[in-house]
Amino acid sequence: MVGVDFGTLSGRAVVVRVHDGAELGSAVHEYTHRVIETELPGSGVRLGPDWALQSPQDWIDVLRTAVPEAVAAAGVAPEQVIGIGTDFTACTVLPTTADGTPLCSETPAEPHAWPKLWKHHAAQPHADRINDLAARRGESWLPRYGGRISSEWEFAKALQVLEEAPDVYARAERWIEAADWIIWQLTGVESRNICTAGYKGVFQDGRYPSEEFLAALDPRFAGFAAKLATGQVGDQAGGVTLAPLGGLAGRLTARAAGWTGLPQGAAVAVGNVDAHVTAAAADAVRPGQMVAIMGTSTCHIMPSDQLAEVPGMCGVVQDGIVPGLWGYEAGQSAVGDIFAWFVDSFGADGHEQLTSLAEKQAVGQHGLVALDWFGGNRSVLVDHNLSGVIVGQTLATRPEDVYRALIESTAYGARMIVETFEKSGVPVEEFVVAGGLLKNPFLMQVYADVLRRPLSAIGSDQGPALGSAVHAAVAAGAYPSIEEAAGAMGKRTEAAYVPDQARADAYDRLYAEYRRLHDFFGDGNMLHTLRAIRNEAHP
Amino acid sequence: MVGVDFGTLSGRAVVVRVHDGAELGSAVHEYTHRVIETELPGSGVRLGPDWALQSPQDWIDVLRTAVPEAVAAAGVAPEQVIGIGTDFTACTVLPTTADGTPLCSETPAEPHAWPKLWKHHAAQPHADRINDLAARRGESWLPRYGGRISSEWEFAKALQVLEEAPDVYARAERWIEAADWIIWQLTGVESRNICTAGYKGVFQDGRYPSEEFLAALDPRFAGFAAKLATGQVGDQAGGVTLAPLGGLAGRLTARAAGWTGLPQGAAVAVGNVDAHVTAAAADAVRPGQMVAIMGTSTCHIMPSDQLAEVPGMCGVVQDGIVPGLWGYEAGQSAVGDIFAWFVDSFGADGHEQLTSLAEKQAVGQHGLVALDWFGGNRSVLVDHNLSGVIVGQTLATRPEDVYRALIESTAYGARMIVETFEKSGVPVEEFVVAGGLLKNPFLMQVYADVLRRPLSAIGSDQGPALGSAVHAAVAAGAYPSIEEAAGAMGKRTEAAYVPDQARADAYDRLYAEYRRLHDFFGDGNMLHTLRAIRNEAHP
Repeated sequence: MVGVDFGTLSGRAVVVRVHDGAELGSAVHEYTHRVIETELPGSGVRLGPDWALQSPQDWIDVLRTAVPEAVAAAGVAPEQVIGIGTDFTACTVLPTTADGTPLCSETPAEPHAWPKLWKHHAAQPHADRINDLAARRGESWLPRYGGRISSEWEFAKALQVLEEAPDVYARAERWIEAADWIIWQLTGVESRNICTAGYKGVFQDGRYPSEEFLAALDPRFAGFAAKLATGQVGDQAGGVTLAPLGGLAGRLTARAAGWTGLPQGAAVAVGNVDAHVTAAAADAVRPGQMVAIMGTSTCHIMPSDQLAEVPGMCGVVQDGIVPGLWGYEAGQSAVGDIFAWFVDSFGADGHEQLTSLAEKQAVGQHGLVALDWFGGNRSVLVDHNLSGVIVGQTLATRPEDVYRALIESTAYGARMIVETFEKSGVPVEEFVVAGGLLKNPFLMQVYADVLRRPLSAIGSDQGPALGSAVHAAVAAGAYPSIEEAAGAMGKRTEAAYVPDQARADAYDRLYAEYRRLHDFFGDGNMLHTLRAIRNEAHP
Repeated sequence: MVGVDFGTLSGRAVVVRVHDGAELGSAVHEYTHRVIETELPGSGVRLGPDWALQSPQDWIDVLRTAVPEAVAAAGVAPEQVIGIGTDFTACTVLPTTADGTPLCSETPAEPHAWPKLWKHHAAQPHADRINDLAARRGESWLPRYGGRISSEWEFAKALQVLEEAPDVYARAERWIEAADWIIWQLTGVESRNICTAGYKGVFQDGRYPSEEFLAALDPRFAGFAAKLATGQVGDQAGGVTLAPLGGLAGRLTARAAGWTGLPQGAAVAVGNVDAHVTAAAADAVRPGQMVAIMGTSTCHIMPSDQLAEVPGMCGVVQDGIVPGLWGYEAGQSAVGDIFAWFVDSFGADGHEQLTSLAEKQAVGQHGLVALDWFGGNRSVLVDHNLSGVIVGQTLATRPEDVYRALIESTAYGARMIVETFEKSGVPVEEFVVAGGLLKNPFLMQVYADVLRRPLSAIGSDQGPALGSAVHAAVAAGAYPSIEEAAGAMGKRTEAAYVPDQARADAYDRLYAEYRRLHDFFGDGNMLHTLRAIRNEAHP
């Protein structure tokens, strides 16, 4: 099996043995254009603030370079590869023609013709309008997203295109997630996966938002869902059928076989999202297994047999992680980013030195508590205009004290999310960690102590690519379900970190103070005022 | 005139021309023993935490070295010097025999025999007991100190001696401020000045705290006031008479003339405190002239013809700054100390670079507001267990943003003090700045904008020593009053910094947020909890 993870700056391919998930070889391709944020390649056309684009050519280059290199590194014959699975950042979305040609290949000097990367944030005004209108109309899908959709998602980004570049909008016969576009390139067949349709496309209870709703946003937007609705797998009259996760999207075309060096006709799995597919890599796809992918930010993914409207979650989608279960997503806007910010701007020492000093301390010895809102709050407040707070500093406070307090603040934020799920009737049975922050054992121990529960740890440092290979194994028919494939190929160490009773008790006292700060600052009265003053003052 | 300023680490002498205050020459003597914090000189006896002592020999050395050097530097004949004035840190206090011999010269291996420097903070439990008892008994003097006396003051330090070293307490025939002890050495005559007696000795309405009160603290403490009460200037039967500021304490003895090289018989002014005497140096001794001596901390000194119980002031003392007026004192525990702490621990750049970056910003552009309680809050909350808070940080926050927010926070703290005085019926007519922070014009402009009033600036960088010379001129009869001497010799630039209307308006919005933080955190619920957790956790 080959799994391919399309990230923000690069794509990674990994070759995985079907029967036990052993990772035999991998390769990385750095995108030539990286993130396009200031000007368009070739034309040099300038982009506005908060724009972030990618080039489809970079994605194809991953198929052409990283995949064959990974196969070579694994030392297996290409013919032994029976399937390929992929995952992508999301919502990364692009306009294409009816045959899948990206509009940016036709009009490369038009910014709106390019794929909008997940972190393109220039559609906030459009998201605000969508949210306001949905709340006013009481749209039934809104509570499935914690009461607010993101500016990163399909409808907000498309509305921006419509209003700022109506000609591009008109030419866009398709508005498609890169997760699905790459599958189209591999198979020659268009499909739409349940995961991105649900989490990023606001697809709920068998439908997209209604024409009436869209028309109320902008009359020209009324028919927008038609650009999304071409589910090739089992289209039903009058409805939309999406492709199930772990399903077979199609077979590798001759052209794609030429790019990848893999056998024509190999199974290609339905597209998926990096965070969601990681659950399979961690063998954590059963109800109540919350997988926290902890890196610059943290994404929480959890299947459940309970449907509930959890305040501040990013979304709940039927079959959104594995078929047959509700899939929940929540998140913390900034985690590793906070530590990096502190080290880069305020720490003479690096992460290792600060960690080494911080871990010697007893719980609470620094006298500090912080709110982890330096990048806003995704869950449970869903408010990107919040900001960070550090409380309790004295003239004796040292950088390692603040560093430790910042680590702890993100653990309190995680506990707030877990508790909110449980209070809403969605039990969290196991907390499973994946992602880059696993490399800091001190940080992991803080999380175990703060959460008062054992942490499981994924057994791979290329979780998304491994997860994509698991999905490919299901699509190829090697396993009957994601659960069984994950059980055989996924890697998880249970109780990799176990809470210490005394430290956990000490953290309870600090967490109580965190909650008081959460209540006081969470209404945004003060932090929104500071943000507004800041924005008015900026030259 | 010679003015001598006895500081924390050194003593400074300055020679000043009587008719216009011109500073003709000065010299500094660094104390050999500096601050004695860990072990006693000679014996090596270890000291406990929060101890801080000084050596009387260092003070005498200032008279022997700095005074003749200043006279030589001024190029004046010693015979031309007609008077000498001094000021001291306070409450710096020592036990002596009836002839003024410091007990530490008899038993140098006994810690409690040494002078306790103002920042000796090991008597906090004793201060707490004094405050609790005084509040329970409704002692009339307590509101004169904002409702709480400090652990730094005479009674707390003496109670510590009594209970920890009763033999030292018994041998101490006198318990005397260094401000008065140095006058005793110069004149051979014991006196007690109104200023330290009132601000540090809790002398109010003609008496010290009652025997009943002292006995209730500890029966052995009942007669303590007798160790303070030997006012040589005009002792009255059954009462205590203190020496008025600007008064003539006595004449220079032959021995002191030998030390200083000054003429025997020269006038010696009554002792005084560094902050209070600075008012004279700034020619700011009229009602409503608030002098802020801004350095590592800030001390606010203001004469007034109004008596009021201002919440959180450090003290109000009749004739405490100049005869005939009430003298108010308030303070901010840490000001320059906060900026130094930040630069030393969190700033790759120094003060100048951070100031240069910060001053380019518009008001509020950093999006931050901070509470300036990194060293506790002296006024208006009188709570040393409070700590600092920084609100509004994002991943884009830079060190210069925090640096500016910290400067602003101290300006908000100053505004809170000014407003509290005015709300209590004590008008603040003019805000006059003295001290080391005057060297930062950006910081001064922030204060002008935040306070919404022009700032006056002292015209000397050796304010205390100049102020002592002004007092000496009065004591020598060159002027009939401190007011007139200050008018001729003091130096003040009015409206050295003028508020900008637009910036002042912008700061009003941020100050409103500061006040909300002040309300939320000022009750100490959270910050005391964090402090308690910290203290329990400390290994």
